[in-house]
Amino acid sequence: MNLKLVFYLIGILNLFLALSMTAPLTVSVLYNDGSALSILNSLFITLLAGLTLVLLFRTPNKGIRHREGMAVVALGWLSAGIFGALPFFLDGSQASYLNCLFESLSGFTTTGASIMTDVEVLPKGILFWRSLTHWLGGMGIIVMTIAILPLLGVGGMQLYKAEVPGPTADKLQPRITETAKTLWKVYLVFTGAEVILLHIGGMNLFDSFCHAFGTLATGGFSTKNASIGHYQSVYFDTVITVFMLLAGINFALHYQALTGNIKAFYKNSELRFFLGVFLLATTLVTWSIWKNNVPALAESLHLASFQAASILTTTGYTTADFEQWPSLARIILIVLIFIGGSAGSTGGSIKCIRILLLLKHTYRELRRLIHPRAVIPVKLQGKVISDDIMSSIWGFFILFLSLFIVASILLTMMGIDLTTSFTAVAATIGNIGPGLGSVGPTDSYAHLPQAAKVILILCMLLGRLEVYTVFILFVPEFWKK
Amino acid sequence: MNLKLVFYLIGILNLFLALSMTAPLTVSVLYNDGSALSILNSLFITLLAGLTLVLLFRTPNKGIRHREGMAVVALGWLSAGIFGALPFFLDGSQASYLNCLFESLSGFTTTGASIMTDVEVLPKGILFWRSLTHWLGGMGIIVMTIAILPLLGVGGMQLYKAEVPGPTADKLQPRITETAKTLWKVYLVFTGAEVILLHIGGMNLFDSFCHAFGTLATGGFSTKNASIGHYQSVYFDTVITVFMLLAGINFALHYQALTGNIKAFYKNSELRFFLGVFLLATTLVTWSIWKNNVPALAESLHLASFQAASILTTTGYTTADFEQWPSLARIILIVLIFIGGSAGSTGGSIKCIRILLLLKHTYRELRRLIHPRAVIPVKLQGKVISDDIMSSIWGFFILFLSLFIVASILLTMMGIDLTTSFTAVAATIGNIGPGLGSVGPTDSYAHLPQAAKVILILCMLLGRLEVYTVFILFVPEFWKK
Repeated sequence: MNLKLVFYLIGILNLFLALSMTAPLTVSVLYNDGSALSILNSLFITLLAGLTLVLLFRTPNKGIRHREGMAVVALGWLSAGIFGALPFFLDGSQASYLNCLFESLSGFTTTGASIMTDVEVLPKGILFWRSLTHWLGGMGIIVMTIAILPLLGVGGMQLYKAEVPGPTADKLQPRITETAKTLWKVYLVFTGAEVILLHIGGMNLFDSFCHAFGTLATGGFSTKNASIGHYQSVYFDTVITVFMLLAGINFALHYQALTGNIKAFYKNSELRFFLGVFLLATTLVTWSIWKNNVPALAESLHLASFQAASILTTTGYTTADFEQWPSLARIILIVLIFIGGSAGSTGGSIKCIRILLLLKHTYRELRRLIHPRAVIPVKLQGKVISDDIMSSIWGFFILFLSLFIVASILLTMMGIDLTTSFTAVAATIGNIGPGLGSVGPTDSYAHLPQAAKVILILCMLLGRLEVYTVFILFVPEFWKK
Repeated sequence: MNLKLVFYLIGILNLFLALSMTAPLTVSVLYNDGSALSILNSLFITLLAGLTLVLLFRTPNKGIRHREGMAVVALGWLSAGIFGALPFFLDGSQASYLNCLFESLSGFTTTGASIMTDVEVLPKGILFWRSLTHWLGGMGIIVMTIAILPLLGVGGMQLYKAEVPGPTADKLQPRITETAKTLWKVYLVFTGAEVILLHIGGMNLFDSFCHAFGTLATGGFSTKNASIGHYQSVYFDTVITVFMLLAGINFALHYQALTGNIKAFYKNSELRFFLGVFLLATTLVTWSIWKNNVPALAESLHLASFQAASILTTTGYTTADFEQWPSLARIILIVLIFIGGSAGSTGGSIKCIRILLLLKHTYRELRRLIHPRAVIPVKLQGKVISDDIMSSIWGFFILFLSLFIVASILLTMMGIDLTTSFTAVAATIGNIGPGLGSVGPTDSYAHLPQAAKVILILCMLLGRLEVYTVFILFVPEFWKK
């Protein structure tokens, strides 16, 4: 393990983070909201830390290997969370640094779980930073899942090795740079498009930017206490539903479609599965709330499609208090939490491709019982999926479930009720945001005990980094030469 | 598929079932409880159906092959449930035949979920039959999981191929007969021992028999409305805790221990895992109820160990209303539902061996990330577990979870609340019995809608028959020549 290189790269990351703080600083100065000094101080601290790391650990670049890649990913997110919390802390919007760290990592992991009980009183600069953490986190995820994880072979992501545009060098760096540039273009285009569409519809530019950041990153922080429900607007809901769905689709597919290869869309099994789940969930939720609460069918469909898209893509925006919905609607939303977006999107949780392959594997096992001597491969789009990849996916699945169970038990140990424990953990591992019980769509995470917040912070990180990437740090062999 | 042979064997099974009805008939006559005629009629109907099948489908015995084995297992349990429901129905203790079928299949699958709201008013003969269905079901399971499933390669049970005493012929029948005889001896010895210990402690002979049947089969039907809690006796609780744990251990291991090979016990990984889970769960539950409800520590330990053993082994006896326990205690019991007993025991659910192997596999995947080129096998007691077996276990796991999710969704569609839906399904697939919500330890399943009962009956069957065995009937290829 080349720790020097790891720290050096974390230093570089810090410099970028400091640079990105100029955006909320500008907003703060423009609106003269009184938060400029806190943001400026945060920027300097982050810059200083970055420079220190870069100068101390400057090292001849011999290229990143597997382990360094994993360490950079895990520690990089943590470091972004730690320094990203500074504006919240220095501005005094939260007295506890832990709360600020929760908010910041919730942002960078694109979770959207908040400890802010009233966001509308926050200075504009702070609010902008809060939403920007989503957007930056989303950028990081696209690079991580498409460019880094496939090469590291984490949780079956090596599947995407072949699909990603750009050169296929063995060294990580040229590949990351190339892929990142290509996919960030798509990310930028979509963000711009959503800002424009929201603004055209009458949302002010500041809120349009913040909500576009939250949508494209499938994050979920809003500038309004009632989230998107604040606007009571079918237009905004529809625009955001469409962009949440787009953000839940593999960005490599978007790139192919935008460059003319529309066929790639139709042929993609994961995309079909993702849209199939969305349509089925929307149908069931619509039926459930229409039948029980008797709003008009169109109104039910509109509420249901927004919420299904929001949970499936792990965004977490809300337009209704779905905690009051009938049990069928709630169970569907709970199931969606565990499915999540597509791999290579900014969406989190287990992800469609894995669920699809687990189901295909299971059907294969049924057929194998009938033909015990036949060799029946698991196929995706006509290609055989190797046993190694399947093994890796299974391991991921169990790690995910184990983490869910252990973290839920730890929360109940603090006297938190069952529904809150289960859904708070699911909503953070899955990077969704709101859960049920006392962390429902109308509540915040502020009232939870400190220890619970620490656990949920870990859940957000683990969920976002495909679990493996963090767990592996605890395997002793990882640190050996 | 040799359907003639399948029907012939179901006929034979019916003859045994009719024969076994002479036991409750005798009880009924001895106590002169007025149920003798209903039981006699049930016996005749079952006998007649058996004779008809045997005479109609008599076929030259060419030995059972894989598919016939599976069909006999699935249809055999169903048939036992259908005819076993007759005493309840003809006696008029339940007006609806569906309710009687629920009770009967809950018995034969050793689930112990009941639609009887007041069991203490039932005639002794009927109560005895109710408990006997557990015991007969338990016998069936021992044979099925140790002798049939390993040869069929269902859900990784082929692991046990080598461990089972008796000749290892390729044909199923001699093996089944031999293994069954050996293991039933153990089953009989344990049942006898429990009856004697309960009777010595002051329980009347009738109740001692019924509770021993319910314990050894990890069933859970009691002759008292308050289950074992009725007796308020530390002695009875302790005896039953010990026998529940014994019933949750692989009977092949018991056989080896009873014939002098005590070492097999110490060396067995699954047994160590099973006892480890039991001890950990007992500790956490004890701590949880002691800290929150402030009963004496000894009292907490006693309540916790009984309930942990009861849920882990999937028995479902209760001595306390655990629905009133703190959330930590309840979450631990919920997790135990999904673990279940050992393979080759009468316990149900996913089973310790599978959970253990899934965890080992996951740790292997973590190590493989660090050494991407190394071949690292999954081992159990020093032996390499083949990829085929692991694949089969994974398939089982997903089938189990899928069934849990789909059945829960179907229940919420009927307007049943989330807690009841989730736990009723878990408690029936896992063959436990009581759940939480409106199917908690002090409730029955009587109030659920008819359609929910049909679904839960299917869950009991699927859970008991290792899911695969029933699901496979729906794969078209299964029925082809």
